[in-house]
Amino acid sequence: MPDRFDWAYSTTLMTKPQPLTRHIVSINDLTNKEIETVFQVAAGFLRELSDSKIPYRIGRGTAIASKYILASLFYEPSTRTRLSFESAMLRLGGANITSADPAVSSAAKGESLADTIRVTSNYADVIVIRHPRDGAARLAAEYSQIPVINGGDGSHEHPTQTLCDLFTLRSKNKGLKNMKIAISGDLKGSRTIHSFVYALARFGATIDPLPAPGMELPTHVDRRLREEFRCRMVSKAPNQADSIDALYVTADQPHQLSLYSEPEIDYGLVLRKKIDAVYVTRFQKERWTEKERPYPKIDAKFLREGKYSHASVMHPLPRVNELDAALDNDRRAIYFRQAAYGVPVRMALISLLLHLHRNKSLHRFIGGFAESRHPIYAQPIGRGVHCPNSNCISNDPAERQYAANKFYVIPKNTKPGCILRCLYCETDIEAEAAAHFVAGDATRKTFAPGIGVLVHAPAEKLRHLTIYRNEAEAEAAGLAPRDRRKRAGAG
Amino acid sequence: MPDRFDWAYSTTLMTKPQPLTRHIVSINDLTNKEIETVFQVAAGFLRELSDSKIPYRIGRGTAIASKYILASLFYEPSTRTRLSFESAMLRLGGANITSADPAVSSAAKGESLADTIRVTSNYADVIVIRHPRDGAARLAAEYSQIPVINGGDGSHEHPTQTLCDLFTLRSKNKGLKNMKIAISGDLKGSRTIHSFVYALARFGATIDPLPAPGMELPTHVDRRLREEFRCRMVSKAPNQADSIDALYVTADQPHQLSLYSEPEIDYGLVLRKKIDAVYVTRFQKERWTEKERPYPKIDAKFLREGKYSHASVMHPLPRVNELDAALDNDRRAIYFRQAAYGVPVRMALISLLLHLHRNKSLHRFIGGFAESRHPIYAQPIGRGVHCPNSNCISNDPAERQYAANKFYVIPKNTKPGCILRCLYCETDIEAEAAAHFVAGDATRKTFAPGIGVLVHAPAEKLRHLTIYRNEAEAEAAGLAPRDRRKRAGAG
Amino acid sequence: MPDRFDWAYSTTLMTKPQPLTRHIVSINDLTNKEIETVFQVAAGFLRELSDSKIPYRIGRGTAIASKYILASLFYEPSTRTRLSFESAMLRLGGANITSADPAVSSAAKGESLADTIRVTSNYADVIVIRHPRDGAARLAAEYSQIPVINGGDGSHEHPTQTLCDLFTLRSKNKGLKNMKIAISGDLKGSRTIHSFVYALARFGATIDPLPAPGMELPTHVDRRLREEFRCRMVSKAPNQADSIDALYVTADQPHQLSLYSEPEIDYGLVLRKKIDAVYVTRFQKERWTEKERPYPKIDAKFLREGKYSHASVMHPLPRVNELDAALDNDRRAIYFRQAAYGVPVRMALISLLLHLHRNKSLHRFIGGFAESRHPIYAQPIGRGVHCPNSNCISNDPAERQYAANKFYVIPKNTKPGCILRCLYCETDIEAEAAAHFVAGDATRKTFAPGIGVLVHAPAEKLRHLTIYRNEAEAEAAGLAPRDRRKRAGAG
Repeated sequence: MPDRFDWAYSTTLMTKPQPLTRHIVSINDLTNKEIETVFQVAAGFLRELSDSKIPYRIGRGTAIASKYILASLFYEPSTRTRLSFESAMLRLGGANITSADPAVSSAAKGESLADTIRVTSNYADVIVIRHPRDGAARLAAEYSQIPVINGGDGSHEHPTQTLCDLFTLRSKNKGLKNMKIAISGDLKGSRTIHSFVYALARFGATIDPLPAPGMELPTHVDRRLREEFRCRMVSKAPNQADSIDALYVTADQPHQLSLYSEPEIDYGLVLRKKIDAVYVTRFQKERWTEKERPYPKIDAKFLREGKYSHASVMHPLPRVNELDAALDNDRRAIYFRQAAYGVPVRMALISLLLHLHRNKSLHRFIGGFAESRHPIYAQPIGRGVHCPNSNCISNDPAERQYAANKFYVIPKNTKPGCILRCLYCETDIEAEAAAHFVAGDATRKTFAPGIGVLVHAPAEKLRHLTIYRNEAEAEAAGLAPRDRRKRAGAG
Repeated sequence: MPDRFDWAYSTTLMTKPQPLTRHIVSINDLTNKEIETVFQVAAGFLRELSDSKIPYRIGRGTAIASKYILASLFYEPSTRTRLSFESAMLRLGGANITSADPAVSSAAKGESLADTIRVTSNYADVIVIRHPRDGAARLAAEYSQIPVINGGDGSHEHPTQTLCDLFTLRSKNKGLKNMKIAISGDLKGSRTIHSFVYALARFGATIDPLPAPGMELPTHVDRRLREEFRCRMVSKAPNQADSIDALYVTADQPHQLSLYSEPEIDYGLVLRKKIDAVYVTRFQKERWTEKERPYPKIDAKFLREGKYSHASVMHPLPRVNELDAALDNDRRAIYFRQAAYGVPVRMALISLLLHLHRNKSLHRFIGGFAESRHPIYAQPIGRGVHCPNSNCISNDPAERQYAANKFYVIPKNTKPGCILRCLYCETDIEAEAAAHFVAGDATRKTFAPGIGVLVHAPAEKLRHLTIYRNEAEAEAAGLAPRDRRKRAGAG
Repeated sequence: MPDRFDWAYSTTLMTKPQPLTRHIVSINDLTNKEIETVFQVAAGFLRELSDSKIPYRIGRGTAIASKYILASLFYEPSTRTRLSFESAMLRLGGANITSADPAVSSAAKGESLADTIRVTSNYADVIVIRHPRDGAARLAAEYSQIPVINGGDGSHEHPTQTLCDLFTLRSKNKGLKNMKIAISGDLKGSRTIHSFVYALARFGATIDPLPAPGMELPTHVDRRLREEFRCRMVSKAPNQADSIDALYVTADQPHQLSLYSEPEIDYGLVLRKKIDAVYVTRFQKERWTEKERPYPKIDAKFLREGKYSHASVMHPLPRVNELDAALDNDRRAIYFRQAAYGVPVRMALISLLLHLHRNKSLHRFIGGFAESRHPIYAQPIGRGVHCPNSNCISNDPAERQYAANKFYVIPKNTKPGCILRCLYCETDIEAEAAAHFVAGDATRKTFAPGIGVLVHAPAEKLRHLTIYRNEAEAEAAGLAPRDRRKRAGAG
């Protein structure tokens, strides 16, 4: 992260991040080129080590990670992801230490994740973490001296599942460019979907969302796809929820029936293009209070439509009822191959993070895909604006002392002002029309509106400033509005 | 299984079973000769690797299974069995991945066992499974590409415990032939007992059941022992439940005080023969709704009777109160040696299933001891007769799409008609006197009674037929009785 | 233990303890010289294997424990201790088998710890156990054929944590002699504290207790420190609980404002000496019925006092609120280093117990520091005096048949009579003034008061005697007082 925000870390972190330590928290922590590197290594493992009987399965393994230890910290139920990571580590010749039950861990004694990570990073060489809180993996990465891999954090992201998904698509379609992918089910709660759509967008895919009612993509994910990743999305026409024929490629503004004006894309072609894959997700019942909901079921009848004639059927598994078991023998079903690829893909990622390949590496690079674009605003603990996502790790009482509120400051395309994006869960806070963010000066007990200009201010000045959501919150925190003339001068 | 029933698998299984993949679900999946092979390999490990201080304990180990992975999938509490398997795998030089808590696994998300197995078989080279449902291990074997070992499924079987028991008896008694074994306690709920008595019967033992009241051997186990394994059993005279002196060797018909007429056996001798071992089991409280029950306790007083003077005292452990701790120093107590043998015996089984021995192997052979005798009837999902055992995996809602009802069709010795034996839990359904099984033809919407002849019909014909428990159930499913003359012609 | 008490073991133990098998249940099982041996080996590992980037962290490892297995039996929540042991075993080249959830183990079926240990000691080469009952690790050691390490038993002891603590102090202070250590928080419930203060006392430290109200050191720990270890403790003057200035070095009798009269110690110097370390512990809420209590918090303000200017801040972790996160960057904070040292220190202990070092070893020696001083009185099961600590493993119904009441018989310094110290949890029973222990003779149905003389009686005589807490209890057990003249003659 930018040097001038280093102070934000020094207040809560014991050690400086190691320059060679890469963390994979979001799929956007890897560039497209790095993703391709992971896939080349994974394909190499498959070529050299695959089981002669089952072509996409790793048999036995190598010894390149001999004496290395993977720590699996799973604060949420999992079989597949954990066993797949542990199998990958063993196939590399390494070993595992595992904490798989939250009720049986130090967390039961009230320990913070930050402390657990600081301690565990002395016991292992790489950590994989699964956690019910959005953004937990980012917090873990902040406090870890060894690479942290996100094995799923709340509804936020699940980047290694996406690597398996992309690797499966790549081996099926001989590439990843310009695909058309339908995504079905709980698009709101599924972290798998969120990592997946970012990656699809970055590889130029057109996305066709088929959400269960009320389970659309979260607003901030949708906006990022459109505004930052310039993603082509096929949306239903408003008020025609029942019709699946009225499809439009949408522009920046959701629910607006216009098309992008980029010259190189033939939108008629995009619309007529057949679906390359249908990605099905289960109802994430652990993230909803309701037990049941109307939910789309993908079966032979659904796939009978012409545009699905060559569509691969994908599912991150486990499935419940949303994907008919009768499809298991359909030639389009590739979900068990997706699961099988978990081992070579995770072997590749782990071995690259441990620097075990002479000719391939993940570049020295902290922050990933989105890194260079947005400065970070870090806030003193206990003051100012906080992440509006109640499930964000920064709102966990146990982490209060360790997870200072930090935000990417993102300029708005059209309007003045900016968006604050939580560094942990990546939820956006948008300044409301009637009440812009305001910057408060704790030393002088005053505040001034207008964060837009302040993000370019020198670091020394920022140390004294705290951003509030609006003037009312700044006044509630005991600050008085600054004189207008003074404020004009500060700009 | 017979070729003509292959279609039954193609409807639910993604891949064909690998011909070299053996599964050990029942002790009857191993021939007597194969059991002897397992014991020779186990004895070899003991000879080469035993700890110098404690003669029946493996010290350190070999590296023959280096780079192989055992997946332990335990859906029920266990320390001993799981740790013993994992120790065996480590002593072979292999590694383990473990899912030991049902509440922390994908099962908590509602995933079917069939899916879990299909995925896990990409992560490991051999699977051991423990599950609360009878027949779960057979279902797992159907969906696995790698060998599945049953580590205990409901009240059904626990074959590796039986291998340890037999190995202990064999090393104590210099052989397994013609022993006389008393079995005490919960003979109904104890899967250990079920595997054990099948094996004893096959090695010619006489069995003396000492059940807790109401915990007799299940009817189908008892019948198999008598009718299929021609087992000599010592039974109490009816109406003399309190007397332990009135003992009889029973014939085919239970509760009938006659003797076998086989010429080579001197039944007086059998009755006078001393007991070689008393096998004690705990009250399987997790399989009963009552918390307490009158239960036999084996202690020094019980063993004072003359016929027990040389009886080894065995117990699969854990014990609660049914076996007095004061016996621990009795020279007849061999239960801790039984537990110790868990490691070499399981090492032998795993290494044989992985084909790691040059001169020893388990033959290429699917279906085990009972294989050649009975054809299989496999039924379309959602139609026809189903297993009457409510704890059978085929009655688990989560497996409904994966566990098609399948039955061994077993002719009756004396009467016309047949028995249907569930392929999973091996519970029998007997045609009732007044209402025989009937075969329904879904295409023609008719049914015809008399399954006996149909089991010899060609496979093409069977594809259209569904067996119902009786005429009433066929009619309830919307079928009409076929014309009598036509029916006669079909036979 | 003394030969004449061997019979006590033969009644409950199947095998004799292996002479080369050492168990580390209490820190007092190691002599000071042996502790130094552990530290030399640990320092060697750190020198040879430490990660180049982080000096107190082990990177990768050796292969000296190749093919050895550590069994982790954790009956209580833990991440840190278990993962640290397992990491240590892996860094040595060994492997692990783990049972980490009491609800998922054989204990859920009602198995005794004694049985679990006898079985598990066939599966591994060394055991680490954590258990909620005081004294459980000692019981485990009695029944194990392989070394048992106490990973924390109830409120009793946690010796390997103490080894890490001492190793941290030693590397910080270039030695362990004559330190002055403040201990803060739950001194009653914290097993870590109990092991730590014994070790401190043995290395000549002065201890400054800062208990939370009502959480003072247990009486028997306090007495042992003063009477057996001749520990210098700084105590608050009575009735001045609020003042932290009124400090005194106390003598044998607690709450008495006198000083030791040992000539070689300058008590003024002791009192003026600055604190070398503040050892902070969390509220052990799992050992108290109350959820909250007034509790001291160590923060920058507390440490501002002059005597703490060079005090290292230590914590066994996990912490909750008793240690301010703002201290993490304070140069005096060494708690994360303490945690990091868990790996090399445990590597040293495990490898020494497995005899893997050619030039270093733990002497052949059972019973540790306190061994030679006190004879053991072992009692027939179901009779006589029992441990007054209801959380002692000897009072666990599941262990009743396996944990015979056994006591160290400890003479009193000043008065006639003696103390009985439970062999498991080390809680003391003191004869009350008005009712001395009495020795009952089951054969003759009589009892005689006066245990003091009996402890020197020959073993044959002791076999017939049972000690009762007082005459009333002996009479309640059906014994009659012996004739006074006879009694005089017996002495």
